[in-house]
Amino acid sequence: MKKPLILVVNDDGIRSKGIRTLVDIVNNFGEVVVVAPNSPQSGKSHSISLEEVIRCNKIDIDNGNQIEYECSGSPVDCVKLAINKILSRQPDLIVSGINHGSNSAINVLYSGTMAAAIEGSLLGIPSIGFSLLDYNSNADFTESVDFIKKIINNVLNNGLPKYVSLNVNIPKSKKSYRIKGIKICRQAKSKWVEEFVEKTDPKGNKYFWLTGKFINLDTKEDTDEYALSNHYVSIVPVKHDLTSYSNLKSLDYLF
Amino acid sequence: MKKPLILVVNDDGIRSKGIRTLVDIVNNFGEVVVVAPNSPQSGKSHSISLEEVIRCNKIDIDNGNQIEYECSGSPVDCVKLAINKILSRQPDLIVSGINHGSNSAINVLYSGTMAAAIEGSLLGIPSIGFSLLDYNSNADFTESVDFIKKIINNVLNNGLPKYVSLNVNIPKSKKSYRIKGIKICRQAKSKWVEEFVEKTDPKGNKYFWLTGKFINLDTKEDTDEYALSNHYVSIVPVKHDLTSYSNLKSLDYLF
Repeated sequence: MKKPLILVVNDDGIRSKGIRTLVDIVNNFGEVVVVAPNSPQSGKSHSISLEEVIRCNKIDIDNGNQIEYECSGSPVDCVKLAINKILSRQPDLIVSGINHGSNSAINVLYSGTMAAAIEGSLLGIPSIGFSLLDYNSNADFTESVDFIKKIINNVLNNGLPKYVSLNVNIPKSKKSYRIKGIKICRQAKSKWVEEFVEKTDPKGNKYFWLTGKFINLDTKEDTDEYALSNHYVSIVPVKHDLTSYSNLKSLDYLF
Repeated sequence: MKKPLILVVNDDGIRSKGIRTLVDIVNNFGEVVVVAPNSPQSGKSHSISLEEVIRCNKIDIDNGNQIEYECSGSPVDCVKLAINKILSRQPDLIVSGINHGSNSAINVLYSGTMAAAIEGSLLGIPSIGFSLLDYNSNADFTESVDFIKKIINNVLNNGLPKYVSLNVNIPKSKKSYRIKGIKICRQAKSKWVEEFVEKTDPKGNKYFWLTGKFINLDTKEDTDEYALSNHYVSIVPVKHDLTSYSNLKSLDYLF
């Protein structure tokens, strides 16, 4: 049997520890091609380069068996370019991450990591985004590795429902507990409350840094937030149809 | 009664014809504040500025009653900054657009126009994205105006379901037909097939332009694509929960 072809992408940039860990993992499963951003693309969501050109160069980062390209675009640009210009055939699996920081709950909407996975699922390719709940650039991925291997192995063997990607979030490693297992969850209702930091540049002009606080509005036990806070890996099956079906019948007053 | 406070945003940039048309319309309905990008932000989806600072300046563009700010960030940055730093109270309505080009079907995922509306709905604010199926920067919005007025009037009077925004797409004006009416629809299944254009810069380095072709995979009569191709305005109620609920029970093999 032919080895599976696996595309690796992320949003933290091709040199981040998370994607290097993921490349190490998937090298055990198949033929690996990495097409990832050359700079941090966190919070870039499903953005694509319509006004800017995309540059893409083959590079060597370590001594692994993978082939690697770094791109100037967004994570979704990377997927599109890989599928259309780099890979010789459609990949059997797309893995995105491991993101440094949570993509649970409403974070999925802003996430470049998950947008890359969603873009893969749009094309009918089994696609998974992995995130660790630790923003540190030197985050400890040790405990994540076995869970990621297990999920990838199961998806390669069993596939995924068509047009559905997986949003996998992994609790931060702590000495006080071990991860208990995996739970399939729904996205928790939540929001960010912004706290813009105001600064002044040397010319006296004002500028802002976007920052904020995550607010979980949903304490139900079937949510990703609940699973994560109880030391489980959360997996949310994600789709790209944004229609609110429950409201289709109730909007006749708009005519 | 206090006049409604209306926030206007877009992704084509604050000087585009579409947003100028929308500002003219909403000036009839209430107190208007425009917070929009200072450059084209098409395809920026739900991206937010995490690595870059945001600049924002009060400007005057025409003699309308609105107050206006142009921002360096994405459409979603504009909404966040407006709500947190510019507006004196939560707006009664957010309108985004009028986009030059379609945001129907899968386009909603890439759209900065709709991301701004979705961001508003996240905060519980009635929010509508308007798009005309004409990419021309001098597109003719004449026939759109009455439909947009009607929808805004009905939403101001009746509200919207909480956490639901509206994705309104309007057929391109043609001499051969008139728009027949409005239909509430679901998002059509569809995808883009990319065709990257390869070029070489003066230094001999390769670069790419992202371009592609829209493929509608869904001929059902309840879709936005069907409504638009039959000369109706399409309205899709949009939510931000990406969970694929139908798959929650079927993924136990992932453990």
